[in-house]
Amino acid sequence: MFAERIKALNPYVPGEQPKDRVYIKLNANENPYPPSPRVQEALNEFDSSILRRYPDPDANELRKAFASLVGVTPDMVYAGNGSDEILSFIFYTFFDSKLPVVLPQHTYSFYPVYASYYNIPLHKVPLEDDFSISIDKLLKVESCGIIFANPNAPTGRFMSLADLRELLTKYDSDKPVVVDEAYIDFGAETAIPLLKEFHNLIIIRTFSKSYCFAGARLGFVIAAPDVINTFITVKNSFNHFPIDSIIQKLGIATCNDYTYYQEINAKIAKTRDWFSCELEKLGYDVIPSKTNFVFVKKTGLSGEEIYKEVKKSGILIRHFNHSGIENYVRITIGTQDEMDLLLNAMKNISSN
Amino acid sequence: MFAERIKALNPYVPGEQPKDRVYIKLNANENPYPPSPRVQEALNEFDSSILRRYPDPDANELRKAFASLVGVTPDMVYAGNGSDEILSFIFYTFFDSKLPVVLPQHTYSFYPVYASYYNIPLHKVPLEDDFSISIDKLLKVESCGIIFANPNAPTGRFMSLADLRELLTKYDSDKPVVVDEAYIDFGAETAIPLLKEFHNLIIIRTFSKSYCFAGARLGFVIAAPDVINTFITVKNSFNHFPIDSIIQKLGIATCNDYTYYQEINAKIAKTRDWFSCELEKLGYDVIPSKTNFVFVKKTGLSGEEIYKEVKKSGILIRHFNHSGIENYVRITIGTQDEMDLLLNAMKNISSN
Repeated sequence: MFAERIKALNPYVPGEQPKDRVYIKLNANENPYPPSPRVQEALNEFDSSILRRYPDPDANELRKAFASLVGVTPDMVYAGNGSDEILSFIFYTFFDSKLPVVLPQHTYSFYPVYASYYNIPLHKVPLEDDFSISIDKLLKVESCGIIFANPNAPTGRFMSLADLRELLTKYDSDKPVVVDEAYIDFGAETAIPLLKEFHNLIIIRTFSKSYCFAGARLGFVIAAPDVINTFITVKNSFNHFPIDSIIQKLGIATCNDYTYYQEINAKIAKTRDWFSCELEKLGYDVIPSKTNFVFVKKTGLSGEEIYKEVKKSGILIRHFNHSGIENYVRITIGTQDEMDLLLNAMKNISSN
Repeated sequence: MFAERIKALNPYVPGEQPKDRVYIKLNANENPYPPSPRVQEALNEFDSSILRRYPDPDANELRKAFASLVGVTPDMVYAGNGSDEILSFIFYTFFDSKLPVVLPQHTYSFYPVYASYYNIPLHKVPLEDDFSISIDKLLKVESCGIIFANPNAPTGRFMSLADLRELLTKYDSDKPVVVDEAYIDFGAETAIPLLKEFHNLIIIRTFSKSYCFAGARLGFVIAAPDVINTFITVKNSFNHFPIDSIIQKLGIATCNDYTYYQEINAKIAKTRDWFSCELEKLGYDVIPSKTNFVFVKKTGLSGEEIYKEVKKSGILIRHFNHSGIENYVRITIGTQDEMDLLLNAMKNISSN
């Protein structure tokens, strides 16, 4: 009864949410801190009778608030139902079946899923030995566009703006370079200033990580106005009203309290740097991270072993059974207390 | 810079939301009454710190609550970000490019938009003179599936369950018959009992109309468990978490107060029947409606004239400039007071 294309689907698998006991959840890069008190205030003030009306289809007030937060004009911003929905539209809007999209071998594992959804060919290029992304390798392939996360996931590695500028300068200016800045707010440098020079640069943001909004489903595109208008056309051909009235209000409250998020994210970065040092003292190899997670391994242990041992202590971390990174685990940075407990659990593995 | 497929898009146009003055909005089939007080209670109780966590990707508690509301098992229910997102997945999941999807000439105008999004051919069959849907005409075409709204929009006409059973009996049981019951709660009879006999029957519901939730974005599929599982696979290949944590909670509160919605929807049906009578007294032709809107015309007036005259009185109704229905306007049933004002405005046109 189903269409032929269904057979090609290979759905995304997010971090597990087991219910057998209470776990410390360090497997989905969620923020350990609650949203700003202004979000709770906005929630308390929300009059549910508004829900009988359709929301603003384009979330214009929210677009304005986010544009102001990141220092661009509102016509350079599109708001969607999480960056996952946005990324799906990215594949639909820019990539066709003639030439492959180029991406690093290891990056956000939802990208290949979108490609299969729309039957778009992919070309994956290997990471360097230190897990950095090689510009030359990305450029060597004849492609319809480039996509990667920066900082990258699950490695945590950041490509400098100098390197990104070099990539944009050498690449075809008529083809999109999509930079997914999901983890930009934990100490890395945004590519927004490059938008003035490069019309083909498309920046993706999510509120799921640095803005404590994983449960609220909110993401953004920052790009040239004609790209944003095309995005609105695509949205209006798929689902006219992707963001409900409540989240539009709470999103604005979020944008209006940048100081709060700056503080908690700086705290997370500090915990991350401390935790990385401590892990190294225990003999773990830690990839330098500019995100709210670290990617680590230990000689003599498989990633799966680390993951399983830590789970026994009631802590969930993430293991990807992908060739080339199977010895690593990805650990979300939680509160200082949570990381203390995890460190203790990981100490015990090392003494096995 | 854009993919070839973008050129084929012809986005959906919803009812206008003009800002030049305050209008009585009877153009988007929104409910004139607020959601149940239990929704406001659930909102007041919501702790925003939960938002830092991803929501349940499959909204299982909400699926259970809705399943119980409509009298099926939870494995026969899928919950999505409005029935618009769901309808997009319907086109993706069931229809391919080999044979056309069959639908009535006039039905929900988003269906052709989804077809263009996924490059799926369409075959539209004309309505009968009284705007009813001809089963024979739907069956005469070689097709990959059938889709229509029942009651239909924008006509308001309802296809009886006897006719629907006949359609299902005569059609290929390996091909989907999608019945969009967006307006079922205003006096029509649901096709849910037919699910036991017909595995290829797919029923769509929205909370935007009868559950006062247009701003909350919530819709459902009711179908056989293997169809629901395929839907979950499609969802997980597009956007893993389409429904935010708040709406999951408020949706459950909605399902748990059926009596409230039964009362307000009965009130709307009563206002509709009274309003239809009054319009007929003024010389308007009114298509018998089982929905929260009426589809009307008047000899000697174009639909556009009626729409424009009524707008001058500060009331928005909907006119579709589509061949065959261009003389009609679609009027959402509001409160008794709103309909009194509209009736007065429409009386004045008749005296022109």
